[in-house]
Amino acid sequence: MNRFKITELGNEVFWLRDSERDHLVRVLRLKPGDLVVGFDNTGMEYTSVIQKIEDNSVTCRILSTDHPDVEAHSSVYLVAGLSKGEKMEWVIQKGTELGMEGLIPLRTKRSVMHIEGSKAQDRVVRWQKIASEAAKQSHRVQEPKIYAVCDWRDLAEQLSPDTQWLIPYEEELTQRLASVLERMVSERPIAILIGPEGGFDQTEVALAQEKLGAKSVSLGPRILRTETAALATLTMVLAHFGDLG
Amino acid sequence: MNRFKITELGNEVFWLRDSERDHLVRVLRLKPGDLVVGFDNTGMEYTSVIQKIEDNSVTCRILSTDHPDVEAHSSVYLVAGLSKGEKMEWVIQKGTELGMEGLIPLRTKRSVMHIEGSKAQDRVVRWQKIASEAAKQSHRVQEPKIYAVCDWRDLAEQLSPDTQWLIPYEEELTQRLASVLERMVSERPIAILIGPEGGFDQTEVALAQEKLGAKSVSLGPRILRTETAALATLTMVLAHFGDLG
Repeated sequence: MNRFKITELGNEVFWLRDSERDHLVRVLRLKPGDLVVGFDNTGMEYTSVIQKIEDNSVTCRILSTDHPDVEAHSSVYLVAGLSKGEKMEWVIQKGTELGMEGLIPLRTKRSVMHIEGSKAQDRVVRWQKIASEAAKQSHRVQEPKIYAVCDWRDLAEQLSPDTQWLIPYEEELTQRLASVLERMVSERPIAILIGPEGGFDQTEVALAQEKLGAKSVSLGPRILRTETAALATLTMVLAHFGDLG
Repeated sequence: MNRFKITELGNEVFWLRDSERDHLVRVLRLKPGDLVVGFDNTGMEYTSVIQKIEDNSVTCRILSTDHPDVEAHSSVYLVAGLSKGEKMEWVIQKGTELGMEGLIPLRTKRSVMHIEGSKAQDRVVRWQKIASEAAKQSHRVQEPKIYAVCDWRDLAEQLSPDTQWLIPYEEELTQRLASVLERMVSERPIAILIGPEGGFDQTEVALAQEKLGAKSVSLGPRILRTETAALATLTMVLAHFGDLG
């Protein structure tokens, strides 16, 4: 059944407008009587029948309401150093499928991509769309939030103060991720800091350790590309807390 | 230091020919006196100095020989249902970085990509090249082997008879990967069967269970794309055996 993000939720009914309406009508060519699933980012899922298709909206009558156990119970965020377009998009799409709670794009010293102002905002809109599509595809009921592009000085305030920060770092040779995870708890958010293509600068790692209390960790002896490191770490954290595999 | 696959190993010296020689000379424009690292897929690594550049070969004098502990100790293979070009390439590149031992491309019922004969051979050559490049990039000393495109009936004989087969399957609702891994041992090879875009057909899962003794496993409640499932499972298996994170 096709999945749609609800624009407005009423009593036993919901409406789809704008791009959700257009996708249903023009791309999928669904008709009144067809079944669809709606979700509203509260964790609920509404199995529904299309009642009426109008120029500006689609009205769906709710047949059943569920609270599927599909979301991760731990809240794991990726903080991704800005890297080339395709890599960010891949991480956002795959990170959403795996179960990340949100992603914060971070300006870093070695970021090759430099985006500011409205260009940065446009990019975030595009990334949010990728996350939303991936959330539907993976049957999630909560879209991960893609945050505004952020600098180091504003990073701490983006997430709750009890966040547990992890920073995979090539030059960390002794502390392995697995052992650090043993000392983390699933009740508090976890944020994984991942460098851009060239990795974090040493001063950035020191900053993360001092200001955020981030634990630097080794992922093992093989050098991973930024996007591989992001998704592998996310996978291992979610798996550790029983939210994957 | 740039890394090269050794064409011929001599006594305190090695030679690079063909594409390795061309890459060193034309792309990287290295000169006699520059330092390079050579590897020969035996697990050894040779730090060396370029001695002589000729039209058909580069001669490198070995300064030191190492056996770095960079390869995974467990042997984990991916068996990937043929999927669209970009996905296969991504899985091969990322799987190599993570530490897979090899990849077997498998023709499946729902594979959209159909390749036979010389076209299939050419594709494997291309995939092997991607694996070789990724092995260098991640500082591995053993390139994963990309096998010839294979059918179900020939699959068992590709790997050792004591291989432990895993098959992530959407309709497996009770048996989680984590619990199955508890009963596997790192001394025997592990092969992860991953369906193409549309997933495995039910008869294929039954075949894998009967003929290979494959354990079907759930990766959790979220639906993963084929390439995400492949890399997430590989990550979790390697992490379980202490070979990642």
